[in-house]
Amino acid sequence: MPAIDNTYRTHYTNQIESGLLGQRATIAGWIEDLRDIGKVVFLTVRDVRGVAQAVVSGQSIEIIRDKQRQSAVIISGLVQDSKSKDFSLEIKADRVIILNDATHPLPIDPTGRVESALDKRIDSRALDLRSPKTASIFLLRSVLLENIRTTLRSNGFIEVNTPKIIGSASEGGANLFEFEYFKKPAYLAQSPQVYKEQLILALDRVFEIASYYRAEKSHTARHLSEFLSVDIEAAFTSMNEIINIAEQVLMNILSLNLSTSEGDMNGSKTLLIPKPRFPLKRLSYQQCVEDLKKQGENIEIGDDLSDASLRVLGEIHKGFFFIVDWPTKLKPFYIREKENDPRFSYSFDLQYGHLELISGGQRQHDPNRLKERLIEQNLNPDNFKHHLRVFSWGMPPHSGWGLGFDRLIMALTNLDNIREAVLYPRDVDRLTP
Amino acid sequence: MPAIDNTYRTHYTNQIESGLLGQRATIAGWIEDLRDIGKVVFLTVRDVRGVAQAVVSGQSIEIIRDKQRQSAVIISGLVQDSKSKDFSLEIKADRVIILNDATHPLPIDPTGRVESALDKRIDSRALDLRSPKTASIFLLRSVLLENIRTTLRSNGFIEVNTPKIIGSASEGGANLFEFEYFKKPAYLAQSPQVYKEQLILALDRVFEIASYYRAEKSHTARHLSEFLSVDIEAAFTSMNEIINIAEQVLMNILSLNLSTSEGDMNGSKTLLIPKPRFPLKRLSYQQCVEDLKKQGENIEIGDDLSDASLRVLGEIHKGFFFIVDWPTKLKPFYIREKENDPRFSYSFDLQYGHLELISGGQRQHDPNRLKERLIEQNLNPDNFKHHLRVFSWGMPPHSGWGLGFDRLIMALTNLDNIREAVLYPRDVDRLTP
Repeated sequence: MPAIDNTYRTHYTNQIESGLLGQRATIAGWIEDLRDIGKVVFLTVRDVRGVAQAVVSGQSIEIIRDKQRQSAVIISGLVQDSKSKDFSLEIKADRVIILNDATHPLPIDPTGRVESALDKRIDSRALDLRSPKTASIFLLRSVLLENIRTTLRSNGFIEVNTPKIIGSASEGGANLFEFEYFKKPAYLAQSPQVYKEQLILALDRVFEIASYYRAEKSHTARHLSEFLSVDIEAAFTSMNEIINIAEQVLMNILSLNLSTSEGDMNGSKTLLIPKPRFPLKRLSYQQCVEDLKKQGENIEIGDDLSDASLRVLGEIHKGFFFIVDWPTKLKPFYIREKENDPRFSYSFDLQYGHLELISGGQRQHDPNRLKERLIEQNLNPDNFKHHLRVFSWGMPPHSGWGLGFDRLIMALTNLDNIREAVLYPRDVDRLTP
Repeated sequence: MPAIDNTYRTHYTNQIESGLLGQRATIAGWIEDLRDIGKVVFLTVRDVRGVAQAVVSGQSIEIIRDKQRQSAVIISGLVQDSKSKDFSLEIKADRVIILNDATHPLPIDPTGRVESALDKRIDSRALDLRSPKTASIFLLRSVLLENIRTTLRSNGFIEVNTPKIIGSASEGGANLFEFEYFKKPAYLAQSPQVYKEQLILALDRVFEIASYYRAEKSHTARHLSEFLSVDIEAAFTSMNEIINIAEQVLMNILSLNLSTSEGDMNGSKTLLIPKPRFPLKRLSYQQCVEDLKKQGENIEIGDDLSDASLRVLGEIHKGFFFIVDWPTKLKPFYIREKENDPRFSYSFDLQYGHLELISGGQRQHDPNRLKERLIEQNLNPDNFKHHLRVFSWGMPPHSGWGLGFDRLIMALTNLDNIREAVLYPRDVDRLTP
């Protein structure tokens, strides 16, 4: 195998542009197809940016003739017009280097001609990603992460990094992974909730995009035990203002021109959903219960909205909609109740049909009331002592939300299973690769 | 306490700009100082963007007079010229709302007039962040994270999210946190090494900025058990090219005009080091050993560079420099040895004096040699079976590095202790707040 030289990257393009006609070009990537017609071998080489054709003849033919598809190659030569119906230009190869062989049979076919089950594809994820369809999901993730950060920064949010190793169960104790941390019990954080609330006490508006952990025993298509969350929190900000920011995040994503935003990454094919009308519907929880009753559902004010109920609501309202003003007792201790009717709270979820994408609201900033709320929810205030003391340092009214990023990708690309949207998903049955 | 209304944010400014003279303005923040001179109270209100003065008289005076410093307030009124030497403009308050009290005595003084030990400051981090000096470190983190991502994206890197819960010890087994994952043993990842190498097999160039975990029992000023790492990996890329990218990341950071890049966040005061000359020195390991010998150090080719040795080198070379071509046996199994002298490898570290900021190199892409290297380093290839199989799918030559982001902040701001650079540090003794 040859050593790498610096010229690889410099001249490297899998998009042979028209301006290159008659010039030298080098392509690096993986053999997608190889047609040996005797004195000439036609070769298509793919990488994440696209696919190019090369024509090999003369001495180089012996190097390439017996090579397996998906082997890594570098090919140089002059660019010429192509007679192929798929390519207008091609490289007439005079330099062919095999960087590494692909050993067949391969566990899956990344060209997509032979379909494989999702589990098999995840088992061989690195190879699965050579499929443009799979790659486009993860290219979309990359583009959206940046787009979301840009929207948040333009709204004055500062990026922070909070600990994922925590000393006490910060939002109740259910479903936490526990481990021994230098002889002390510790847990993996299931959200940055307490930290982001603390930080607005000085940094005003903060956001974090990071992985969190829930020991979910469920086998649903929308839960994982490790997931990426976009979290924001803002001081001096009401529920409606924080909903506006969620809406702006979504609006900016949906107005992305993905076909041009990151080269020729086929991102435009990935966003499959129609653009909703903004502002989105903000349905009250009580309105939702009324709607469900009209559909014959057996539900009363105060009941949680089951997955079945949310599916019915999703049928009525379609696409994206907010459910606001949930019963206080259905929401976590840190959500603030309404002054005029404490049975209900300044809380909201963003739904995409039955799928909950965002959950948030205005927070309880009164330290005494916060302590009472912990007790009401059968939580031990002693476990929250590091958190509660912060509220006596001039805690302003504040609001925030958490967005399940993997679920957002599911929604935007019409995927049925969250495992399609995550490179290396983790669930009750899967810990590898 | 009042409900929040939407006007808070809209009119909210702690920088009273000259154009506001004679107009209404609202400021929200925390009382820094309060001078009661009888019929008038002078008040300074700070938030992360700056500090403003308000003059309160009339009825509002009774609301504010006895309030403690660091209480959260909102103040509205007309902007007028100020006679104060610190402010050219001030608000003549006609509306004063106390959002929440600060209960005294406070555990630390965030104005910095009374200094507190670092441990005490971390115990009360949310309050400590009201100090502009502390806040500036974390504002710098936010700005640099974005700047690094921009540099990487402009070099064709795609952002990925790899799992932090892993099923086998991926880089040896030392210093991993272990826990029970649905009745199976699992570990917290100490780097994305195996995943980022796998992903370049299709995505070509990837980066990730995320938290990783090492069960470090050390008590040094530069190790934490949870740390933020910037990781990149690139196919068809040599060690020198990947070093060039590290250099470009650093150059772009050091050419940031921080005083304008994120409002008036005093970021310019944070970058304390002089700008180095680019390109940075690339010293060979062998050259370093020669230098150390000349200084009377007891060291031979093949020995690791101890912290003491690195301190001596840091004295000779100052600031940033690379050490390249380390002995193969001192580097992890995935580093590629040189063809012409396999005792040495395509590996490098970026030093800032004695502090190692980046470690990287070209990787071993030959699957057979990689397996041999595992055995040479007393690792069990069976634990790497999910990883090794990927190398038979046409793995190209590739290179990458990992940057300790918290250490970079330490270096750039001349901090002595990494705990200053992390919001909620985690070490052998600290698991809270």
